[in-house]
Amino acid sequence: MFLEKIKSPEDLKNIPAADLDTLAKEVRQKLLETVSQTGGHLAANLCVVELTIALHRTFNSPRDKIVFDVGHQAYVHKLFTGRYEQFDTLRQWGGISGFPKRSESDHDAFGVGHSSTSISAAAGIAAANSIKGETNYTVVVVGDGAFTGGMIYEALNNCSDKERLIIVLNDNDMSISPNVGGLSKSFSKFRSSVKYFRFKSGIKRFFKAIPLIGTGLTRLARWIKNRFKKMLMRPNFFEQFGLNYYGPLNGNNERLLEMALREAKDDKYCSVVHICTTKGKGYEPAEKRPDLFHGVSGFDIKTGELKNGGEESFSERFGKIICDRAEKDSRITAITAAMPDGTGLADFASRYPNRFFDVGIAEEHALTFACGLATEGIVPVFAVYSTFMQRAFDQLIHDAALQNLHIIVMLDRAGLVANDGATHHGIFDAAYVTEIPNVLFFAPNSFKELEECFDKALNADCPVVIRYPKSGDIKTDCLTLGDGFDYADFGESPKNAIVTYSRLTDTVVNSAKECFEKGVAARAISLTQLSPLPQGVFELLAGMDKIVFAEEGIKNGGIAQQLCAALAERDMLKNTEFVIKAIDNCFPQHGSNNLILKDLGLSQADIARAVLGEQL
Amino acid sequence: MFLEKIKSPEDLKNIPAADLDTLAKEVRQKLLETVSQTGGHLAANLCVVELTIALHRTFNSPRDKIVFDVGHQAYVHKLFTGRYEQFDTLRQWGGISGFPKRSESDHDAFGVGHSSTSISAAAGIAAANSIKGETNYTVVVVGDGAFTGGMIYEALNNCSDKERLIIVLNDNDMSISPNVGGLSKSFSKFRSSVKYFRFKSGIKRFFKAIPLIGTGLTRLARWIKNRFKKMLMRPNFFEQFGLNYYGPLNGNNERLLEMALREAKDDKYCSVVHICTTKGKGYEPAEKRPDLFHGVSGFDIKTGELKNGGEESFSERFGKIICDRAEKDSRITAITAAMPDGTGLADFASRYPNRFFDVGIAEEHALTFACGLATEGIVPVFAVYSTFMQRAFDQLIHDAALQNLHIIVMLDRAGLVANDGATHHGIFDAAYVTEIPNVLFFAPNSFKELEECFDKALNADCPVVIRYPKSGDIKTDCLTLGDGFDYADFGESPKNAIVTYSRLTDTVVNSAKECFEKGVAARAISLTQLSPLPQGVFELLAGMDKIVFAEEGIKNGGIAQQLCAALAERDMLKNTEFVIKAIDNCFPQHGSNNLILKDLGLSQADIARAVLGEQL
Repeated sequence: MFLEKIKSPEDLKNIPAADLDTLAKEVRQKLLETVSQTGGHLAANLCVVELTIALHRTFNSPRDKIVFDVGHQAYVHKLFTGRYEQFDTLRQWGGISGFPKRSESDHDAFGVGHSSTSISAAAGIAAANSIKGETNYTVVVVGDGAFTGGMIYEALNNCSDKERLIIVLNDNDMSISPNVGGLSKSFSKFRSSVKYFRFKSGIKRFFKAIPLIGTGLTRLARWIKNRFKKMLMRPNFFEQFGLNYYGPLNGNNERLLEMALREAKDDKYCSVVHICTTKGKGYEPAEKRPDLFHGVSGFDIKTGELKNGGEESFSERFGKIICDRAEKDSRITAITAAMPDGTGLADFASRYPNRFFDVGIAEEHALTFACGLATEGIVPVFAVYSTFMQRAFDQLIHDAALQNLHIIVMLDRAGLVANDGATHHGIFDAAYVTEIPNVLFFAPNSFKELEECFDKALNADCPVVIRYPKSGDIKTDCLTLGDGFDYADFGESPKNAIVTYSRLTDTVVNSAKECFEKGVAARAISLTQLSPLPQGVFELLAGMDKIVFAEEGIKNGGIAQQLCAALAERDMLKNTEFVIKAIDNCFPQHGSNNLILKDLGLSQADIARAVLGEQL
Repeated sequence: MFLEKIKSPEDLKNIPAADLDTLAKEVRQKLLETVSQTGGHLAANLCVVELTIALHRTFNSPRDKIVFDVGHQAYVHKLFTGRYEQFDTLRQWGGISGFPKRSESDHDAFGVGHSSTSISAAAGIAAANSIKGETNYTVVVVGDGAFTGGMIYEALNNCSDKERLIIVLNDNDMSISPNVGGLSKSFSKFRSSVKYFRFKSGIKRFFKAIPLIGTGLTRLARWIKNRFKKMLMRPNFFEQFGLNYYGPLNGNNERLLEMALREAKDDKYCSVVHICTTKGKGYEPAEKRPDLFHGVSGFDIKTGELKNGGEESFSERFGKIICDRAEKDSRITAITAAMPDGTGLADFASRYPNRFFDVGIAEEHALTFACGLATEGIVPVFAVYSTFMQRAFDQLIHDAALQNLHIIVMLDRAGLVANDGATHHGIFDAAYVTEIPNVLFFAPNSFKELEECFDKALNADCPVVIRYPKSGDIKTDCLTLGDGFDYADFGESPKNAIVTYSRLTDTVVNSAKECFEKGVAARAISLTQLSPLPQGVFELLAGMDKIVFAEEGIKNGGIAQQLCAALAERDMLKNTEFVIKAIDNCFPQHGSNNLILKDLGLSQADIARAVLGEQL
């Protein structure tokens, strides 16, 4: 076993080149064993085994900085940088994160989770080291999928003068879903020109060999040389940004990679090393269906059978609802930012290909594109994870709300997302959506309400946002449905109310039950319309001694504070205590949602205790 | 006079070609006469006179849709689309907007103000019309400066299949400030190849002429043809996105423009028409200093002398402070997103060129780039307008706050921005910044406090945001300075408090004075630290009968609601009425700040009335 002896990248350098293939096999085995149990990102890590070996043999981390884009492909990096022993705690509460994390290791140069930030961060690191007069390298590992995100271009446009910055474009033609767009086709052309790298180096050497320095030099000779050089070495996409380009080359060939990386090191200024890898490399089920093995909940290594979440999710139900409505209403179109499967839109995509748009990892474009559609009477439905919608915050304000355009945003993964952790929790949307004028904002509790909200959204004439968690249908069945809220009383004329919205509804109902069982009557209220706040809820809250608001979202600017202020403005807090239980000025970590909620003081018992307080 | 007779684009089509030069002169004269009085964007409009004539003669607006990027260059379009008579109300309260606005005219296909949204919106419009089976055209007018923004690439990557979409790249080598980055150099190369357009058309025709269809066709002939074609017609930047390319051509030659636009119309799929224009064209002072004449407050047409704001602004004072501190502290770097002048950083740029980064109109990149710098112990100071920072909301959460990196964001133009209007008001930052964990958030009242806050920010170890308005120093001098707040009492033991922050402080102090003069003692409090809320303010608010919070910002999720909830949680509202005066679920329009504030109910008298209520 080579792998278990690697305590730091230095150990990796001491392994004989002849044994690296064996090491790669050991790494792949470890990845399979762990991810089949913990869940996580598999295919992307299988494909960067050779690359990660080559990087850590060519560079000196942590002095040289390695920045991963998205970061889901950093498992191998974690195995080589002192985290082999903890690797089976991957993505578990208290264990190592599924993404690079600065607080976890000096080798994690920049924390990440969202796409397309890597080159910007690395440019900053390289600029800082240049200012400080350091001579270390900054290396970026970025997938072709990230190139559908605009930040990459903003960064590329600011790299040509950055010293000792090397961008490794890991091109596997399939980041999350097959890549979309014009540029992806251009990349395909690169890929098909397999001899490009050798050819171009050859030409470079040839021209270098023509002697132009010395007494015999004439302007004509130089002109001819440059002319031919231009003719044969047309600038490619990256060279148009002023960057040096190496590639494309086989990214699963470790020796070739080391050679190319060493060549790139000789460039003082920014260079791009374009490598082509096979997603899922070395594990047949993942090579065959890299989309399925992108992110998994767990699987059987032998059969390749995936563990399934089991119960129907809000995403899946939404997928059915939109397909149904689209059959009757030809105005309906659907947009995804590279997540047709995750958002439940795969079916829509195959049934209505002309009304379906996968724009790549480009939330900003997606939102404004939707607005363009809306100006012409089309009803765009953009399904996006809550955390990624943060990218299109300005577009929701400036393009949708200001023009009061009828678009529908389906905010999936709203609330905690368990093991994906801090970068992915959807805990800010309730605050940032409600501050935007003109937006109608729903938080359906149940599949039934999801359907109702979607129909209301179709008939609205303003931007509508509908949020729902990564979960199945609500469990409780005791709620009375009101206009913009649901509620249930436990005990007669309760003087205590617990308010919430979205997934915490089940918990809050159980907290209210617990209070009742402990002798204190309580009313559980779940808001299903968050903005504007439904008028009826004020009647339900009149005359309460105590109101506890439990929010699976950030406290500052959240719904609890907004409701509290609305009550104060109505002079309804004179005899009422108002208690907020929410995510207060912190980023929840990764783990099961129950463990996170407990840590945040948002368990059923915590909420019940907030009601009971000194009353017991 | 031709111009005054143009009531719609149809009238423009009837003007003989020989008279178009005269028309262009009239348009330029009208632009000078108006903008010298109203202020606004001059240079960019002077350069698109011929383009706008050509667009409205070649296309049929409003059936064909014309989408402007940023929209500051749409004045000529407004003159041709029925707004000649109102043109002198430009940017005034109740008058026409300085930007395209859907509610103002059917000819304004998409409202705008922020950069780089145009191609996304137009792609949506084109897709909608394709779905509906319409055959109208969608035309984008986008400057080269917008190409430093990432959304453009996200959109370009999604255009190749869009039908009847034409992108006019208006390349004047200087959008707001001279363009930055690698791509800008690539554009320069295009520009210098003046014969490109004719050359390429020639080659196209040549190859079309070689007969390949018919019985004599061999595979070899086709291979040779394609080989030569590739050799001579290397794909340029746009063609790599799968788009057809025409250009570059002289964009101040109306006849040439009509010719190129007609050629582009023949392409069913998306094409890019690359035109080169002279910013400030036809007005010597603006041609010489297009940067000064980009946005102006007014000027003397004869001398070209610019009207000056007069008093020193917060931006200017910040520029002095950072230069001073940078002399002693070599960690300090400054970043701007294409606004070195507007943000007061021009001086820093010339004094510390190695520590200054103008990244283009790329707020997302700027923020993450800053985070990269911070990981290496450099202190990045990103100065950006409040409204544009909305673009980097996710980066502030995901890259800065989550990693608790020490970056400083100077939020300029926080609050209302008068005549620039709805797209540019900085009214959301107080809500969206406070919801982010770990961020220290200041709102200095005075230049003195700006300096203190900046020093606190330099010594912090977390992300710091400092907001300030587009205004001069505070006028009032009666404030007692506390820790995180300032206050002044008018009358003995006031039982009424008015709370605010930032620029409204002067108004609120005057409201408190007014109350006192009318017999009601009042305490004026201005928060200078918005997050976390300063503890001392709770003591100042204890025992009040009434608290009025006046906020020059959005109400939902804003500071007023947050303070109200914090008081409720402290059980401090039992005997206290809490009144919020803020921007409630609406987008304020353009005009003088005083008129806007009056309209919003935030004038001195309104606020005093909220305190006095039935007390008088």
